[in-house]
Amino acid sequence: MAREHLIDTARQVYRSYGFAPIDTPALEYAEVLLGKGGEESDKQVFRFTDQGDRDVAMRFDLTVPLARYSAQHIQELGTPFRRYHIGPVWRGERPARGRYREFMQCDFDTIGSDSNATDIETLMVIHDLFEKIGIERFTIRVNNRRVLNGLLEKNDLLQHASGILRALDKLDKIGRDKVVAEMVEQVGISEAQAGNVLDMAMLTGTPDEILTSLDGMLQGSETGETGLSNLQELFGTIRTCGLPQDRVTLDVSIARGLNYYTGTIYETFLGDLPGIGSVCSGGRYDNLAQLFTSQKLPGVGASLGVDRMLAAMEELGMTEKATTPAPVLVTMFERERAADYMQIARTLRQAGIGAEVFPEAKGIGKQMKYANRKGFQVALIAGTDEFASGTWQVKGLVDGSQQQVATEQVVATIEALIR
Amino acid sequence: MAREHLIDTARQVYRSYGFAPIDTPALEYAEVLLGKGGEESDKQVFRFTDQGDRDVAMRFDLTVPLARYSAQHIQELGTPFRRYHIGPVWRGERPARGRYREFMQCDFDTIGSDSNATDIETLMVIHDLFEKIGIERFTIRVNNRRVLNGLLEKNDLLQHASGILRALDKLDKIGRDKVVAEMVEQVGISEAQAGNVLDMAMLTGTPDEILTSLDGMLQGSETGETGLSNLQELFGTIRTCGLPQDRVTLDVSIARGLNYYTGTIYETFLGDLPGIGSVCSGGRYDNLAQLFTSQKLPGVGASLGVDRMLAAMEELGMTEKATTPAPVLVTMFERERAADYMQIARTLRQAGIGAEVFPEAKGIGKQMKYANRKGFQVALIAGTDEFASGTWQVKGLVDGSQQQVATEQVVATIEALIR
Repeated sequence: MAREHLIDTARQVYRSYGFAPIDTPALEYAEVLLGKGGEESDKQVFRFTDQGDRDVAMRFDLTVPLARYSAQHIQELGTPFRRYHIGPVWRGERPARGRYREFMQCDFDTIGSDSNATDIETLMVIHDLFEKIGIERFTIRVNNRRVLNGLLEKNDLLQHASGILRALDKLDKIGRDKVVAEMVEQVGISEAQAGNVLDMAMLTGTPDEILTSLDGMLQGSETGETGLSNLQELFGTIRTCGLPQDRVTLDVSIARGLNYYTGTIYETFLGDLPGIGSVCSGGRYDNLAQLFTSQKLPGVGASLGVDRMLAAMEELGMTEKATTPAPVLVTMFERERAADYMQIARTLRQAGIGAEVFPEAKGIGKQMKYANRKGFQVALIAGTDEFASGTWQVKGLVDGSQQQVATEQVVATIEALIR
Repeated sequence: MAREHLIDTARQVYRSYGFAPIDTPALEYAEVLLGKGGEESDKQVFRFTDQGDRDVAMRFDLTVPLARYSAQHIQELGTPFRRYHIGPVWRGERPARGRYREFMQCDFDTIGSDSNATDIETLMVIHDLFEKIGIERFTIRVNNRRVLNGLLEKNDLLQHASGILRALDKLDKIGRDKVVAEMVEQVGISEAQAGNVLDMAMLTGTPDEILTSLDGMLQGSETGETGLSNLQELFGTIRTCGLPQDRVTLDVSIARGLNYYTGTIYETFLGDLPGIGSVCSGGRYDNLAQLFTSQKLPGVGASLGVDRMLAAMEELGMTEKATTPAPVLVTMFERERAADYMQIARTLRQAGIGAEVFPEAKGIGKQMKYANRKGFQVALIAGTDEFASGTWQVKGLVDGSQQQVATEQVVATIEALIR
């Protein structure tokens, strides 16, 4: 129930921005899925030959299927194509806490536009998603790959980019000095050059302060200036739109997705549980479907980590304990009057209140135990006396209250109890 | 979008009766899935050896996984255990119109009670489901396997049951005479015996009339009388609860699920499209999980045929044409004022109205074409003049209206247009 609720929330938020649902098959031709994959992911893929002698595999993410789908259908779909896709993916890796061989992905992407407006809206979707989930304290860390690339370009370090980014990725864990050492010893750049990179990556302050510092560092690099102006527009817009400013920070050190992301990048951390890592990440990419079509399809999107987020919500006590989606249990005492119990349940449902009828005339203790274990909020009780007087006992299972009310008062009484 | 909407509706109805969602993995051990399967289904299963040398297979229905899950967890779950499960299943068969290798199942079941009250509630769920989908004319055909078994028992024909049922299943297609002939020639019962079976199977009339006839035919058979009294309670209850009586019929000829169902059985036909067959079927079974546990788990449930139902709704013109879940498109004319376009979209979303922002300042024609193709209901337009006067052009794309309103009136104006 908690998972369904979380996914429903994501769906609502995505839809409110005009993203439409798509689904693709679990199985794709192996060459479609593995065309781009490195060896590591190849080994993790569930792959087999089917009844028709086709070499097929189970999707290991929703991005490759999106690329295949977009390449195939973009002419009918038109751009911008905004879709969300929520579904399971499979990886044959060793399971661990919060890591399963089957897990749920919950992606949204805007395909076919390189406008920075879509980058900004992606950020807003992430913001609204966590607000709607009910998280008060969270931080979306934003960066733009062009900023770092601009600095590398200016310092004539572009050919060392992947080594520099790899070293930079360890900044949180090993600290500045060791990162500089790695850049010098393993990447082969000078200590001064490494210092420049670290000076930028370690900029702190408000977004405006950092943007001002970046301005000086990036002047003359077209790439860097584009990244900078994209970030300036992003922070300007969230100010105009009134997003709480402490929820969006600029973090020049994040460099996720070495080869994949090319512009804005996002990571989301929970204020009360930063240790579990980013619960929603994404970014802008230059060309989604280059393996499948010559049409260039730039895009931007992000993915909610459903399993990680659920683990976090459980740890934060944010998940409901109830295992019934219906608030009311209609208990049964006289088996031959089952129709009357069902009728009152029906009346409740017609008023929008979920109600389950206990199917057998078991003892009160047993039925109440069932009601409490499942987390019902209200039990309805009627025996000979109540039927004779046209009344019901309404038992509030949360506050322990009990009242005898006329049949026509049952809906209003229960509404007051559960609302 | 149509599929998601249909599934959402099913979910809402199931939840209103206290059914809770579960999910199980796509992959199970092959021996779990195939333990009970006949050869036909074995051949259709996608089965392979995974990275850990496990013999695994993709689920081909949601019933076997439910049996495995129930056997494993029924002690913690307790009974009655009411669950719904909506998810894809896979069969490596030849695809045809409305039959795919991957398709969606949408099941609900009550496990662990043999009370006829759960049979009656199953019927009510089916009824409410189609009502909520928006189908006015539909018929749920009900029968009880015990009625037929009772008649066979009384006529000493139980040992010929499967042959008789197989012949009976052809009644619609080949007619009474040929069914009698098959029973005599192939099953080896007398013409008089076959006549008795057909007399019962072909009873027509109101449920009450048929029940009265059955009463005479079944007296003395305990099985038959139980079936009869279950049906009597069912039709009595739907009368008490006020379900439209033409929506539920008693059809003694239906005998689906030869070996599986043991009590009430259900089939659902659309009044405007009966030819596509049953769109929601199910029944009562004696022992769900006998392969996995010695605990006896009786149950009753049904399954909405999502793909078939969607095909029917398309044919009936019941599916929305729009491919956007957001009713409003905010067009963009001045790229440098993107923040203002995003802000009005945000205001709409906060009022519960989905809004998409067109990400680039393309020509009006192009943006309107996009809006119409996607099925937006309203376009918001603002250029220099509107920004100067603090107004927006609100264009109704359904009625062709256009009005210029102050920013603070936009929400109310659009609400009036789309509600």
